[in-house]
Amino acid sequence: VSSRTIARYRVISLREDHYRFEPTGIDAPFVVCESGDWVLVLAITPDGQLVLARQFRHGVREAVLEVPGGIVDPGESPVAAGLRELAEETGYTAQRAEYLGRLLPNPALNTAHLHVVLAEGCRPAGTRHLEPLERIDVTLRPLDDIPAMIRSGELRHALVIAAWTMMKLREG
Amino acid sequence: VSSRTIARYRVISLREDHYRFEPTGIDAPFVVCESGDWVLVLAITPDGQLVLARQFRHGVREAVLEVPGGIVDPGESPVAAGLRELAEETGYTAQRAEYLGRLLPNPALNTAHLHVVLAEGCRPAGTRHLEPLERIDVTLRPLDDIPAMIRSGELRHALVIAAWTMMKLREG
Repeated sequence: VSSRTIARYRVISLREDHYRFEPTGIDAPFVVCESGDWVLVLAITPDGQLVLARQFRHGVREAVLEVPGGIVDPGESPVAAGLRELAEETGYTAQRAEYLGRLLPNPALNTAHLHVVLAEGCRPAGTRHLEPLERIDVTLRPLDDIPAMIRSGELRHALVIAAWTMMKLREG
Repeated sequence: VSSRTIARYRVISLREDHYRFEPTGIDAPFVVCESGDWVLVLAITPDGQLVLARQFRHGVREAVLEVPGGIVDPGESPVAAGLRELAEETGYTAQRAEYLGRLLPNPALNTAHLHVVLAEGCRPAGTRHLEPLERIDVTLRPLDDIPAMIRSGELRHALVIAAWTMMKLREG
């Protein structure tokens, strides 16, 4: 029926859509968070470690263990965005990168798609470029430890777990 | 520094928190979506099929393949909420249910935790109770098909993939 943007913030806008449901004729609003697409990078070192980033997250007000990622800039490819975020957040660069696919992070609330990129041969190769408000601790963990980290709750970020699963399924 | 609720909707509220970052002294707002916790249910039939629900999702404006789930009501346990949503959305009931754990669906934007429940011995056993605005198509798929469905992009809901991964890792 109608759609309007009701608020704009740094990273997201809020969009209110009105739908009419037939045959009841009920008219209802749905509020969704609009943003550019997101990318997560599974960055692997030559000795089989995953590059992890821990940062304070305002939704849950605690430090959360994640992989590097962020918002894809307009006109930027997901792979380029992933490698840019990897370098900015961790200082690592990759020898090769591969696009693993596209997920829906939360299709009920968010317009964004979530792109997943695999970066291999990653090495620390430069200075990080954190935004003024970013505090990110970089840590490496062997890929073989990831299942136990998910089981124990050390790795609880659902989008990171989904991205890791895409990589595992690609391996067959 | 400060925190205030700036808007309330049917399922979510928006909260704006102000932080001051030391040592720069930069003061910045962060907007997050507040809601009750969420639950997803991996409902398995006696012949090894997963109960899936396809419904229109307003964020991406398309029908999305998911598992049953919803918001945990105040005072309700995650397992009770999961079995309630399973019955309401699909008409299935379970012989036994198990709490698999708690994930963070999107700690940068959402305050919610995501609880994951395994329900086994599921059978169609009653009338669905859809909310007036819900349109949900129920479908069964063999558990063994899930990896191929993720690989092909047929199953793209990241939170559902993370929940399925928790179940797989529990199996060892």
